[in-house]
Amino acid sequence: MSARTSAAEAIARCAELNQFSAQSGALERVYLSPEHAGANALAARWMQEAGLRTWQDAAGNQCGRVEGRRAGMPALLLGSHLDTVPDAGSYDGMLGVVMAIAVAERLRDRADQLPFALEVIGFSDEEGTRFGTALLGSRAVVGGWEESFWALRDRDGTTLHEAFQQFGLDPHRLPEATRRPEELVGYLEAHIEQGPYLEEADAALGYVTTIAGARRFTVTVLGQARHAGGTPYPRRRDALAGASEVITTIERIARASECIATVGRVEVQPGAVNVIAGRAELSLDLRAATDAERDAMWAVLHTEIAAICQRRGLGLEVVETHCAPAAPCAEWLQQAVVAGIRSTGDSQPLGLWSRAGHDAMVLAATTDVAMLFLRCHDGISHHPAEDVREDDVAHGIDALEQAVLAVAARLDARVAETQQGVVQ
Amino acid sequence: MSARTSAAEAIARCAELNQFSAQSGALERVYLSPEHAGANALAARWMQEAGLRTWQDAAGNQCGRVEGRRAGMPALLLGSHLDTVPDAGSYDGMLGVVMAIAVAERLRDRADQLPFALEVIGFSDEEGTRFGTALLGSRAVVGGWEESFWALRDRDGTTLHEAFQQFGLDPHRLPEATRRPEELVGYLEAHIEQGPYLEEADAALGYVTTIAGARRFTVTVLGQARHAGGTPYPRRRDALAGASEVITTIERIARASECIATVGRVEVQPGAVNVIAGRAELSLDLRAATDAERDAMWAVLHTEIAAICQRRGLGLEVVETHCAPAAPCAEWLQQAVVAGIRSTGDSQPLGLWSRAGHDAMVLAATTDVAMLFLRCHDGISHHPAEDVREDDVAHGIDALEQAVLAVAARLDARVAETQQGVVQ
Repeated sequence: MSARTSAAEAIARCAELNQFSAQSGALERVYLSPEHAGANALAARWMQEAGLRTWQDAAGNQCGRVEGRRAGMPALLLGSHLDTVPDAGSYDGMLGVVMAIAVAERLRDRADQLPFALEVIGFSDEEGTRFGTALLGSRAVVGGWEESFWALRDRDGTTLHEAFQQFGLDPHRLPEATRRPEELVGYLEAHIEQGPYLEEADAALGYVTTIAGARRFTVTVLGQARHAGGTPYPRRRDALAGASEVITTIERIARASECIATVGRVEVQPGAVNVIAGRAELSLDLRAATDAERDAMWAVLHTEIAAICQRRGLGLEVVETHCAPAAPCAEWLQQAVVAGIRSTGDSQPLGLWSRAGHDAMVLAATTDVAMLFLRCHDGISHHPAEDVREDDVAHGIDALEQAVLAVAARLDARVAETQQGVVQ
Repeated sequence: MSARTSAAEAIARCAELNQFSAQSGALERVYLSPEHAGANALAARWMQEAGLRTWQDAAGNQCGRVEGRRAGMPALLLGSHLDTVPDAGSYDGMLGVVMAIAVAERLRDRADQLPFALEVIGFSDEEGTRFGTALLGSRAVVGGWEESFWALRDRDGTTLHEAFQQFGLDPHRLPEATRRPEELVGYLEAHIEQGPYLEEADAALGYVTTIAGARRFTVTVLGQARHAGGTPYPRRRDALAGASEVITTIERIARASECIATVGRVEVQPGAVNVIAGRAELSLDLRAATDAERDAMWAVLHTEIAAICQRRGLGLEVVETHCAPAAPCAEWLQQAVVAGIRSTGDSQPLGLWSRAGHDAMVLAATTDVAMLFLRCHDGISHHPAEDVREDDVAHGIDALEQAVLAVAARLDARVAETQQGVVQ
């Protein structure tokens, strides 16, 4: 199948996955939902058609595998995630999974010559939309699941533990999802850039040097719910007015720095038109090129937020919900991706640091990782207008396939060097 | 029954009504809910025990009536509302209804000497919690129902029309709830002050001179949902950051004026931790002593809000959801309330303008209205800490009863004057 045909099929498959959505007319597919099950089943069918043996792991990740030169060899993992944010686009995550399946399909006749098993994985929870804590699918794979996760609740009050059972998974068997380092050669993830840099550089593809780690906080501002008409300003302790000052202050400070700070969610209690807000809970997502910059920014923001609340007579509660260190991509695996991009005619591949978090950053705890970025329209992501060019996807599939072959060549060369050493 | 005993019973009845709540551990009773039906049934039982003939009108208001000197005379209405905000206190609205029932009970043996029928009404929707548009119950009574109301939707998407049917009401029969001016003598409403002024003046009771009209708006700020990590600040059109600047600006401008402007609700789409907000919808509630001051404030705020959105590249939609003109209380009916307060030993009753809206402001379109305010603890309302003193409620019941008798005396005197005029 030509890269162009594979690309058209990959894009069509992303569209086909949109049928598994909790919203009509908009895409939302969250962890352990009926839509999650539907997307897994469809991805499994495609994996089987590509010659892979498939299974759903103990954390709901959809997996497929074809053996290499010998059965039971360590695996090179290709993948991304199948879950989405609310009102999502069709490509964030899903494109990387269907591209991985396309590459497996193109390599199926040569799989038994590869010095590794080839696996494809569709992670079940990268966005953290349902339970607030992101990357649950990949955390299970690296053995990074924390006991406290089970008590996480979704908006309806369902715990993660209950959701596992409702989905048909056994919480006790979760450790079976964990992969040991010696089972893996590395992890390669293709993903839309979710930023404007490739488009600005007129490049279809780029390779990732490091993935910035995010810290996420739930910041709760506590005031007093009172009647909107009857309460003069000096008596008000308005949680929403305070939260609004917090949000504009976060924006002002982060904008003047190299960091990115986003408040994407705010929930107000009681939330009535004629009642002063008694409680406002907001999310804060904080990123920077290095962990040190990011942590310094948080120290500044936390001090400012506390000062605003104190001045307004408001209470403040801060809970850190997520903390991921920056994850550098392995140099040798980056070079495989660079070789893949070069094979598409781009002699000077662009290296980027990823402002967005990815499953690859979690996988880095267990195995070497690298990422291939694809240009996306206007840098738009987490939005229905998310878009990619078919040409870029064709180049991406070629590059990912060649990156896999570059990994194989490198492993073979390493084995040959070792054997030569033995012979000498 | 002594005023003290009546007051204890009235307070106990407010507590008893708390059982009809959509939330466990918190009070929320909205229009056309099962809780609404429960509260109506209980209020009807109390009305019957007080000797009133009861019915639920075509808009779900709970009514009771005892005839006066002759059957079919115009009625003096006493009442308030039985619905609540979310996480409400026990007295806002309900206290006025149970006080009206207490007064009817105390007057039951003299009702047939009164020159009017005495009616008690528990309005079904004052707060507007469910459908966003307030005062639906009293609007039905004055014939102020608009055809467009039927399409209002609650958060679950249920229209007002559907909710009527689910409650067992026939939308076609709504006009039957309307009372003609000639059927009414006036409307007297007892209500907690919902502000700090009586407490500051060390007064149990006050009379209302005018009720400020509120204007309410839904202000929608439109940005673009994008990935939090991948979108540099210059490319962001962050609806929540814009809305936050709008909220702090509204607060700053209103605080420096004589107006009260409150943003009590904000809803963000898509509302995910790692997605820049594409849409933020906020409520604005605006009040002032006069309509002119209030409208001038809105002109200033609207200009400022539009400037913020333009500077940030954000769209703006403004919908006015409610507009009530200030409603002056009728001088003669105010004097009846003043006489009632004086009868409790307060020789210099305090007159206040009501910053909060009330059913009385709607009734003013059809009949003369006046209000009796009761001191509440720390001015707190729309909050579980809402509280009143039993002594104040006892004074309030006495004052309301005496106000009813003052109205009767005035009407009798007027009739006597007319007859004298005829004789001369």
